[in-house]
Amino acid sequence: MSDVLDLTCELISRPSVTPDDAGCQALVAARLARAGFAIESMRFGEVDNLWATHGQGAPVLVLLGHTDVVPPGPREAWTTDPFAPEIRDGVLYGRGAADMKSGVAAFVVAAERFVAAHPDHAGTLALLLTSDEEGDAIDGVRRVARTFEARGTRIDWCITGEPSSTRTLGDLLRVGRRGSLSATLTVRGVQGHVAYPDQARNPIHLAAPALAELVARRWDEGFESFPPTSLQVSNIAAGTGAGNVIPGTATVQFNLRYTPHWDAPRLEAEVAALLDRHALDYAIAWHRSGEPFYTPEGPLRAAAREVLAAFAGAPPEESTGGGTSDARFIAPLGAQCIEIGPVNASIHQVDEHVRVEDLEALPELFLQLVERLLAPPAAA
Amino acid sequence: MSDVLDLTCELISRPSVTPDDAGCQALVAARLARAGFAIESMRFGEVDNLWATHGQGAPVLVLLGHTDVVPPGPREAWTTDPFAPEIRDGVLYGRGAADMKSGVAAFVVAAERFVAAHPDHAGTLALLLTSDEEGDAIDGVRRVARTFEARGTRIDWCITGEPSSTRTLGDLLRVGRRGSLSATLTVRGVQGHVAYPDQARNPIHLAAPALAELVARRWDEGFESFPPTSLQVSNIAAGTGAGNVIPGTATVQFNLRYTPHWDAPRLEAEVAALLDRHALDYAIAWHRSGEPFYTPEGPLRAAAREVLAAFAGAPPEESTGGGTSDARFIAPLGAQCIEIGPVNASIHQVDEHVRVEDLEALPELFLQLVERLLAPPAAA
Ligand SMILES: [Zn+2]
Ligand SMILES: [Zn+2]
Repeated sequence: MSDVLDLTCELISRPSVTPDDAGCQALVAARLARAGFAIESMRFGEVDNLWATHGQGAPVLVLLGHTDVVPPGPREAWTTDPFAPEIRDGVLYGRGAADMKSGVAAFVVAAERFVAAHPDHAGTLALLLTSDEEGDAIDGVRRVARTFEARGTRIDWCITGEPSSTRTLGDLLRVGRRGSLSATLTVRGVQGHVAYPDQARNPIHLAAPALAELVARRWDEGFESFPPTSLQVSNIAAGTGAGNVIPGTATVQFNLRYTPHWDAPRLEAEVAALLDRHALDYAIAWHRSGEPFYTPEGPLRAAAREVLAAFAGAPPEESTGGGTSDARFIAPLGAQCIEIGPVNASIHQVDEHVRVEDLEALPELFLQLVERLLAPPAAA
Repeated sequence: MSDVLDLTCELISRPSVTPDDAGCQALVAARLARAGFAIESMRFGEVDNLWATHGQGAPVLVLLGHTDVVPPGPREAWTTDPFAPEIRDGVLYGRGAADMKSGVAAFVVAAERFVAAHPDHAGTLALLLTSDEEGDAIDGVRRVARTFEARGTRIDWCITGEPSSTRTLGDLLRVGRRGSLSATLTVRGVQGHVAYPDQARNPIHLAAPALAELVARRWDEGFESFPPTSLQVSNIAAGTGAGNVIPGTATVQFNLRYTPHWDAPRLEAEVAALLDRHALDYAIAWHRSGEPFYTPEGPLRAAAREVLAAFAGAPPEESTGGGTSDARFIAPLGAQCIEIGPVNASIHQVDEHVRVEDLEALPELFLQLVERLLAPPAAA
């Protein structure tokens, strides 16, 4: 069994459902300490974070990942125990096999090999792991980034090992992420009986034209590799359950995924202006999940493109699609951020899996990328 | 204590929460039998119905009421026990004091006096009581009316004793009721993740413009004393609760209160046409609660107007407002229907009450009306 496969299985067998790290980071820390890394554990609340560095000064390259996994759901739905990794027909199954214990294991193996081959590499190679990427993400990388800011820790480049490939390993290079902004809108009316509409104000009726306008709006046409900004209503609720009562309030939850054309304060102002034009009596609570980030052409993106093209046989799609990732917290520190990892088709599902062949190629992929950035031929 | 006050108290002390009659109808039946009425008890399912007649042939005048009451809610909310009638400051308190044990008691006392004074009156005087007016109203007057239809029982005039007055006894004469039609609309989309809107179809977004059009529509401008037809959304629900999931379906419940301009099939067709224009994938389940009825000018309305004007000192407002009543089931038999009763301000509330003065006037009011219809001076 290869080193990376063995380590991935050891990580999967630790049931680290968010925010429980279940010993994953201790395992990683022990290996990296043996390889000469300086280890710092940062526990905030129930969340474990690990910061391991080798070398010093600029440029600082961070390999970013998480040890937590989403709950597996009912055991019966899985072919085999989600926390008992099993290989069938060249595929490794288990919760976290794709998202992202394979990525974490590949980081560790690549880091060990890199510092063994280049003990005096340029700058700093760091690993940053959290046990709360899948959860609230309050005490995870968000909090670590605030600590870095306070300390003056600079980061130049950040490679997130999230499952990013769509069909084959290396077919997609994520060069940014949309921003995410959520709202809970409460429209107030006056409760009453359906037989006496004059004595009530139906908040659903009041909200309907505003809602129709809100969901019809085109926010932009996209931006470079960003898809257009999109607003989606996730939940709507009004009513007592009774068929003869006009409710007093209506609640609408929605989420915006937005390009770097926008930021949260401007989006919030636009929505408020729309609601005000409809003369609604409303309250709105915003939750800013992360501003967008974008890594334009530069040394990080160029290096990643070349390495991925060599692995996949064709240049990768350079995309900004998908959900949010912890890179949203690192990018504001001034870091260029990209995301590279295994095929993401099975993440958060039953029988989550990764191809063993892909898994075994991953450390070499990360190693080549780290070498291009911290040990270029001229400096080697 | 007057006869009608005494009987009202006896009825209130029987806790006849729908569909439980709690012995009310037996009490009424015993009295009417003593007065010479023929008694027929019609029990359907859990519901008691009482049909008592005196005389025979046309014209048939029915006094229509119910013995059931809505639940009192928590005892602590009431000043005194809702099923222990109590008089304070000339006001009788108790569940059913207004809706409508006072009306039932007044019917009984008026009927007794009428047949004693006019043993050979014209046509038929009947009382029809149910114990399911406040509930599903399936096995109550709806079912009785179907039985009458099968038997060929004809009804010319129907006086419902529901609390109808607004400020003083006799200030309002109800001469019709709007129809009521309810719908549960399910709009189908395709569930997905808010980050990938292209792979989903958000049913809230699809429904929003249709909903905005539906609630903005003016159906008519009213009809004689009918207020305009009104559509009210009572409940709307979509979403899994999670903020990052586009729901697969959205559900909207609404109710139409409509004038005799419309009937249920035409309203259903109009709504379907609107939804079809918006190209929605939807299912809709209709519940027809009752077509509208309307009693135009004629002997019943004229007699009632004159009697009420004498009691109240001014002609009554002639209205078709308010919710539905059991008259909706009697009107389709070809009967002219009106509704007259005590002040309705406290119905379905805690500390429900009726003024003793009004209660004691009520039998005389009904007696005069019955006399005008079944024992006019020329025939007496
Ligand atoms: Zn992940
Ligand atoms: Zn009633």
